[in-house]
Amino acid sequence: MNKDLAVNAITRFKVQKSNQNEIKTDQIVSEEPLEIRIDSGSGDSRLAITMRTPGNDLELAAGFLWSEGLLRNREDLISITSCKDHSLSERERENIVVCHVSKDAPAVTRELERRFTISSACGICGTDQIDDLKSRGCTHLQKPQLKIDELAKLPELMRQRQNIFDKTGGLHAAALFDPEGNLKVIREDVGRHNAVDKVIGWALMQNLIPLTGWSLTISGRGGFEIVQKSVAAGLSAMISVSAPTSLAVETAREFNLTLLGFAREGQATIYSPDPGI
Amino acid sequence: MNKDLAVNAITRFKVQKSNQNEIKTDQIVSEEPLEIRIDSGSGDSRLAITMRTPGNDLELAAGFLWSEGLLRNREDLISITSCKDHSLSERERENIVVCHVSKDAPAVTRELERRFTISSACGICGTDQIDDLKSRGCTHLQKPQLKIDELAKLPELMRQRQNIFDKTGGLHAAALFDPEGNLKVIREDVGRHNAVDKVIGWALMQNLIPLTGWSLTISGRGGFEIVQKSVAAGLSAMISVSAPTSLAVETAREFNLTLLGFAREGQATIYSPDPGI
Repeated sequence: MNKDLAVNAITRFKVQKSNQNEIKTDQIVSEEPLEIRIDSGSGDSRLAITMRTPGNDLELAAGFLWSEGLLRNREDLISITSCKDHSLSERERENIVVCHVSKDAPAVTRELERRFTISSACGICGTDQIDDLKSRGCTHLQKPQLKIDELAKLPELMRQRQNIFDKTGGLHAAALFDPEGNLKVIREDVGRHNAVDKVIGWALMQNLIPLTGWSLTISGRGGFEIVQKSVAAGLSAMISVSAPTSLAVETAREFNLTLLGFAREGQATIYSPDPGI
Repeated sequence: MNKDLAVNAITRFKVQKSNQNEIKTDQIVSEEPLEIRIDSGSGDSRLAITMRTPGNDLELAAGFLWSEGLLRNREDLISITSCKDHSLSERERENIVVCHVSKDAPAVTRELERRFTISSACGICGTDQIDDLKSRGCTHLQKPQLKIDELAKLPELMRQRQNIFDKTGGLHAAALFDPEGNLKVIREDVGRHNAVDKVIGWALMQNLIPLTGWSLTISGRGGFEIVQKSVAAGLSAMISVSAPTSLAVETAREFNLTLLGFAREGQATIYSPDPGI
């Protein structure tokens, strides 16, 4: 856990248990808005706001841009910096990051309307969204080299490293495993999508994308947005401890992403590839 | 469960358990994008897209508009209709609703930028967001008449009615209870915020807002967005079975919303009002 995360991810409040008279101090996971700004050389403008747990905010912004198809390649992202506007309070500055991107990045050129939808979805039915991923150059993914029972054990390895969850019980986690199954990065956040963007942003800044052969594990459910991010990052497998959604399964099968759900004690349900073929 | 929900909320896929050779059919919760359009008399335009479980889409749109402060009162919402554009496919039409609103509704007059942020947050730090709720006219909420141990039992009553969860294991629920603790409406969705918008939209269409004395229960965690929606709906209590976030607690205390977490077997942790006062 880095210092930034350790300091800001937990807030302390006085609370009371309903069956006890005593008032005690509880550790609660922090949630603050993060504003992501874009600057292609002529001043910055707001791209999006997301509610997140403070910490690893530069990774979050980088991963968000990549997942949303707002960068064509690593070079489109010149740098990410904290806000330097000293007319704002410290708390406000900590909730803003500025992404310096090339003038030709989709973050700049793509029309305003598509950038600002609630979930950044682009179509009006599921197949439109699969087509949108294809139009961004996402292709058939490689199979993981790990066997299914090895993949099904990865969420337990992530669980052992969820430090903030252990203290607060209130947040999600995402982790990346290399092709041999070694945990390389874990991030925790109140938003599952933020935790995923943080680990993908980490990979982008390490020049590891496409993550061929790598696996992503997440706490909770696996919906379309997480599969979309996995496909965009070129991952080989996505493993959750709970159920996927219909569009998550459809999308994973379309791109040959290995999708496992209900992964517990080395067993899992295989949702993709289609076992019927 | 209405017919719409029964038909569309579950999709069937062939899957395989990793420890069994047999391929079997699994029931998976449906997820599709819903496009919410606004029409104030001069044609419709896209307001937002959200990933949701099909069913009760008119309620979802109504609750979304109310929660986001895009309606001043019930009269601002003239009607909500399904999409009638027959140049689109049936699947596409089912994923679009058109909200007919008065010309003076904030949905029409509010500047574009604020409408289209990821989480519809409006400030750059948490206190800005609390101020934003105040500027929308949200005020000090009334205490619930039920006792804490009675409130703490409500999530279990909701759990007994989560029909789709029982079949798929993959989605969230929200329910509204009247001041005497009777469950009046429950909705399930892949997105917790959608489930909340659906029950609030139901209340809006029944002319029940502000929901003074009523309680909201949700599955999972209670973050800022859910507290924000509760405050905007004038609820008296919000009860979850897991942890809240820092900004959820701050906001609930600011508006005197009774906020309970870890509600299990008639016991809970009281996060708001501040027990220290």
